[in-house]
Amino acid sequence: MKDALAKYILKKVKMSGEELQHVLSHFNHRAVKKKEILLHEGGLSNKMYFVVKGCLRIYFIKDVGTEVTRRIIFENDTSASMVSFITENPSNEFIEAVMDSELLYMDRKDFYHLVDTLPAWEKFYRRQLEYAYVVNTNRLMSFITNDATERYLLLLKENPEIIKRLPNRLVANYLNITQEGLSRLKSKL
Amino acid sequence: MKDALAKYILKKVKMSGEELQHVLSHFNHRAVKKKEILLHEGGLSNKMYFVVKGCLRIYFIKDVGTEVTRRIIFENDTSASMVSFITENPSNEFIEAVMDSELLYMDRKDFYHLVDTLPAWEKFYRRQLEYAYVVNTNRLMSFITNDATERYLLLLKENPEIIKRLPNRLVANYLNITQEGLSRLKSKL
Repeated sequence: MKDALAKYILKKVKMSGEELQHVLSHFNHRAVKKKEILLHEGGLSNKMYFVVKGCLRIYFIKDVGTEVTRRIIFENDTSASMVSFITENPSNEFIEAVMDSELLYMDRKDFYHLVDTLPAWEKFYRRQLEYAYVVNTNRLMSFITNDATERYLLLLKENPEIIKRLPNRLVANYLNITQEGLSRLKSKL
Repeated sequence: MKDALAKYILKKVKMSGEELQHVLSHFNHRAVKKKEILLHEGGLSNKMYFVVKGCLRIYFIKDVGTEVTRRIIFENDTSASMVSFITENPSNEFIEAVMDSELLYMDRKDFYHLVDTLPAWEKFYRRQLEYAYVVNTNRLMSFITNDATERYLLLLKENPEIIKRLPNRLVANYLNITQEGLSRLKSKL
């Protein structure tokens, strides 16, 4: 269960076998059902998730009733609602399981204890933060500077798995357009 | 000249006097004139700036001719065009001096060399990244989820210095509205 996580960590940072076992010992397993909500808006994002199998979705509410998906996390990737995880303020996002999923997670307080006591984990976290900063900034900037067609073409290029594996409803939601808008857009390309 | 920078660093992280001197020795001084461009879109953001006096503005082009200010940096704060600084890809942003300014800067390669060799500097950078992640995400989310009036009220609450010290043209630009829109909005409050 933890092999994929071990590989993921060692791809980002060097650490001894003993250090790795110490880190892995802080991760717990959780199985979630499709549509299960792991974090509600207003809750504290106090867990760092690693997706072993399945898919998570992080979204926020734009206007009453309008969800916008900020991030999709497939297998072999980590995530949390990072602003809340960092600041310990209530999250303005939801985390939902898109399908039945197997997760590993570490509690925030264990996570930061490791950051403070294990230099290799601080380096791991620093690299995670750099990655999160870049992915998140590019994603949010794309909402501001690109139109729907440009966003779709970018998604095709950078993250085709989202288009291949998820229902049209979620692809449209990720692009912040309606399903009808997505159909029209595809028919014109 | 470097006293304010030393204080800024020690507020974020503990380090010995020797380590601090070592870090400070990598910062160089630069004086810039009002409207001077420090980074053009397409250039590499390879310097981390600390504002000793004056003000920097980071902006991007939304549509042809429409600038959007992502960040304003007054005295005693650091910044770079971070996505480019992290990835070494060409920046999609400009950095401009809003007024005559005194800056200290460290070259990217020295910055990362210190990150790799001085644990206290890695910790400093990690905390900077957390801060940058939170500020930037809140800022970009605000463009997507808040209307102009909400953005103005948020600015009044969180960053009134921008309204007090900068011309209306830049305040409007920061809010991503026209100067006329800003006047109308103020008259209604």
